Amino acid sequence: MPTEPVRPSRRRMLLSLSALPAGGAALAQTAQEKVERWGIFEAAVQGPSSGNPFQEVRVRAEFRHGHRTVQVDGFYDGEGVYRIRFSPDTLGDWSYVTRSNRPELNGKPGAFTCVAPTPGNRGPVGVQHTWHFSYADGTPYFPVGTTCYAWAHQGDQLEEQTLATLRAGPFNKMRMCVFPKDYVYNQNEPQFYPFPRQGGRNDYTRFDPAFFRHFEKRVGQLMAMGIEADLILFHPYDRWGYHLMPAEVDDAYLRYLVARLAAYRNVWWSMANEWDFVKEKKVSDWDRYFHIVQESDPYQRLRSIHNGSVLYDHAKPWVTHASIQGDDFSKTVEWRNAYRKPVIFDECKYEGNIPRRWGNISGQEMVRRFWLAAANGAYGGHGETFLDAKDVLWWSKGGVLHGESPRRLAFLRRILEEGPAQGINPLPNQKYPVAAREGEYYLFYYDLSQPGEMDYDLPAGVSFRAEIIDPWQMTITAVPGTHQGKFVLRLPGRPHLAVRFRKA
Amino acid sequence: MPTEPVRPSRRRMLLSLSALPAGGAALAQTAQEKVERWGIFEAAVQGPSSGNPFQEVRVRAEFRHGHRTVQVDGFYDGEGVYRIRFSPDTLGDWSYVTRSNRPELNGKPGAFTCVAPTPGNRGPVGVQHTWHFSYADGTPYFPVGTTCYAWAHQGDQLEEQTLATLRAGPFNKMRMCVFPKDYVYNQNEPQFYPFPRQGGRNDYTRFDPAFFRHFEKRVGQLMAMGIEADLILFHPYDRWGYHLMPAEVDDAYLRYLVARLAAYRNVWWSMANEWDFVKEKKVSDWDRYFHIVQESDPYQRLRSIHNGSVLYDHAKPWVTHASIQGDDFSKTVEWRNAYRKPVIFDECKYEGNIPRRWGNISGQEMVRRFWLAAANGAYGGHGETFLDAKDVLWWSKGGVLHGESPRRLAFLRRILEEGPAQGINPLPNQKYPVAAREGEYYLFYYDLSQPGEMDYDLPAGVSFRAEIIDPWQMTITAVPGTHQGKFVLRLPGRPHLAVRFRKA
Repeated sequence: MPTEPVRPSRRRMLLSLSALPAGGAALAQTAQEKVERWGIFEAAVQGPSSGNPFQEVRVRAEFRHGHRTVQVDGFYDGEGVYRIRFSPDTLGDWSYVTRSNRPELNGKPGAFTCVAPTPGNRGPVGVQHTWHFSYADGTPYFPVGTTCYAWAHQGDQLEEQTLATLRAGPFNKMRMCVFPKDYVYNQNEPQFYPFPRQGGRNDYTRFDPAFFRHFEKRVGQLMAMGIEADLILFHPYDRWGYHLMPAEVDDAYLRYLVARLAAYRNVWWSMANEWDFVKEKKVSDWDRYFHIVQESDPYQRLRSIHNGSVLYDHAKPWVTHASIQGDDFSKTVEWRNAYRKPVIFDECKYEGNIPRRWGNISGQEMVRRFWLAAANGAYGGHGETFLDAKDVLWWSKGGVLHGESPRRLAFLRRILEEGPAQGINPLPNQKYPVAAREGEYYLFYYDLSQPGEMDYDLPAGVSFRAEIIDPWQMTITAVPGTHQGKFVLRLPGRPHLAVRFRKA
Repeated sequence: MPTEPVRPSRRRMLLSLSALPAGGAALAQTAQEKVERWGIFEAAVQGPSSGNPFQEVRVRAEFRHGHRTVQVDGFYDGEGVYRIRFSPDTLGDWSYVTRSNRPELNGKPGAFTCVAPTPGNRGPVGVQHTWHFSYADGTPYFPVGTTCYAWAHQGDQLEEQTLATLRAGPFNKMRMCVFPKDYVYNQNEPQFYPFPRQGGRNDYTRFDPAFFRHFEKRVGQLMAMGIEADLILFHPYDRWGYHLMPAEVDDAYLRYLVARLAAYRNVWWSMANEWDFVKEKKVSDWDRYFHIVQESDPYQRLRSIHNGSVLYDHAKPWVTHASIQGDDFSKTVEWRNAYRKPVIFDECKYEGNIPRRWGNISGQEMVRRFWLAAANGAYGGHGETFLDAKDVLWWSKGGVLHGESPRRLAFLRRILEEGPAQGINPLPNQKYPVAAREGEYYLFYYDLSQPGEMDYDLPAGVSFRAEIIDPWQMTITAVPGTHQGKFVLRLPGRPHLAVRFRKA
């Protein structure tokens, strides 16, 4: 499952801020810059640094391509610099003009040419075929995600190690928190804070650009590796106050974050980790966060919200897919039908050995859960929690992987990628979970069962080849001959096997 | 686990029926016979054979010990012979006198002496300590049962093989149907029918004593091996008509069966296998069966009813314990609290490899289920369904065992028998299931979890020894030292382990 490495596609337009006329404002640009499709164009402009620019200055740009206009909010990046980031989705010439409540930032024009994407840049991921995903270029995307909640708050050494681990691994999605984390095995102080902080108090009237520059660097590195960044906007595990900010601070934070990060094509927005464990927030708060993100994001990146023990109503129209904590895969069909959206079991416990209920399943069990998800027409989510003398647990801090599941998840990802581009959907009223594209492809998973033979009832008049798949040994064994209609196959009589039928 | 063999304790009192005065009636007896406690005394008497003795003749006896009287129904055994069976529970002299609507069977006196039981005869099993069982002699009984629904309808060769298998195995309970069975892998015709049968029609006005003599021989052989016979009185898998008899035939059948079999101390009454799958019967029918058995059985043997998908209300007062088909062990505590009775997961799928949802879990999974039951304060139930060229599957026909679970169930039985005599009960609000006798004994089961360490909170001031149990490898590894109060243990970090604490 190695993902083709892609070059970072973000082009910095601000070549030399120090060369700009002091006290004045100018749109820094070169002659007709080239930006790859789904890459990042960034305009930087010098503006006021006095007062509180975060609160007092508004800047945005209107990007134009033909008769089409896209409004994009900019943000203050400190030291008098304002930036506007834009990710173009259409090849050809784009122009733009800035708008601001400050004359020196207003009406500045510019242009760039959107060119073909570099290899490995397949565009952002969106929902396709109701329950599945694809990249904007049409390539199917089958999420095989992992979770390192606070990996971007661990300092360069560990963060670089995490990136190296990810580069060698099977994962194409990462769940990660914007805010730092306070919890068991998570007592270290982060290097950066999102708001200026002194004496244990946050200055909620300003952001600290250093925090965000660091965070978006990490997001960009994931993007370069082809890994979706499923950004968790709020979470309950907090000793700094971020889960209990005033509503207007929540909202300003969301708008600032979207302005900075929405242009990264790998960004997904997850309103929460365990929304219902933040006891002080109401459902209406979470609804409002969705609304703000939805109205601010020019690209309509994917949006979800992850539960503790109570499911948010994923049928609400601003939710693009159901992000589930749980391991009752038998509910998948019900949820698919209720939501008509993709279902990702983003947290189905962790491979590991810690003395916590949620943190010590075996590699075998993790692999089993991914297969159960797949055979029910959903997707799994990985995480790892092995005891470590320095409290570096992958699930939160990243580092290196110790478990046995990742290479089997790579194998599953290969199986999914070899399957129908439209994704596979569960068939009703089956003895065992089977996800299929009817008349073409069937993937049965026998879980705990170890049948020595099995009867099948596939369409008559279509010839299928059968393969017995061992998800743990990572073997695919062809069954001789072809099959159609009603027939019986001899099976190995071991548990945890799958059988795949493909049209001959 | 080996059960001490016991000699069959039933003493036949009918020495030579052919020597009785022709046409007359006499109570056949020897001088003051000795019958072991919880053994079977049997009186046989010659009586009318004309007309329909099954319907026209009633005979019973009043057994007396001191001022106590026990009424026991007799039954017609064909060829003019009437029998009355009685299992005495008290040592010393017993006398009896017969009662009948026929003068030749009425008022016949007799006597016997109840003597100490032979080794291995611990008396019938009853409920003790609300959620558990013990033999009448006070020995705790921890059910480790299996199921061979139709084993007693397979002919002598296979039935003897089944007995030999049971003799070498860990099981101390057998679920078995009175009626023969018609189902997949069960197409053979039985050797005996409970009612005379000709041209595919049953004569419900009579019983066929040969059927019952054969059946009770098998029950007696189980008794001799220390195996409880959990007799299933009705079931849906039938092509002969037994699940759809007229109500008065049902009732006569139950009374006849109780008269013949209640004296066997190993008999348990299970009203049904999958009661709710017999669509033609109402709950009130099942209630009535319970009432008939309850009012007919002088010993009040254990009574239960086993479900398909719908639970019967086990809180009803005539149910002695909950016999469950299912594998949601997380419901155990709820059921224990609702019923205040023992809970046995008598059917939690079968170790095997057949292409049926319920018939192909692995040995590992079967063992896991027994441990989950135990750690939740309940008991499991075994069965086995491996494909066989001659359709001899243990679950229904008996024969030999092929699976990997039985010797691990023997190990679990040993663990339970080494535990508190009062049984162990689940503790509330634990991270993992733990059954305990508080302050004395704790059995934690970690199931899919593989903690590398675990924190415990046992009573302070009591010193405990800890052992790590591997239910599959069947090892018990002592942890050095003693423990009390709050402490952390290093654990092997493998799934499916248990930890046992016993007061030092």
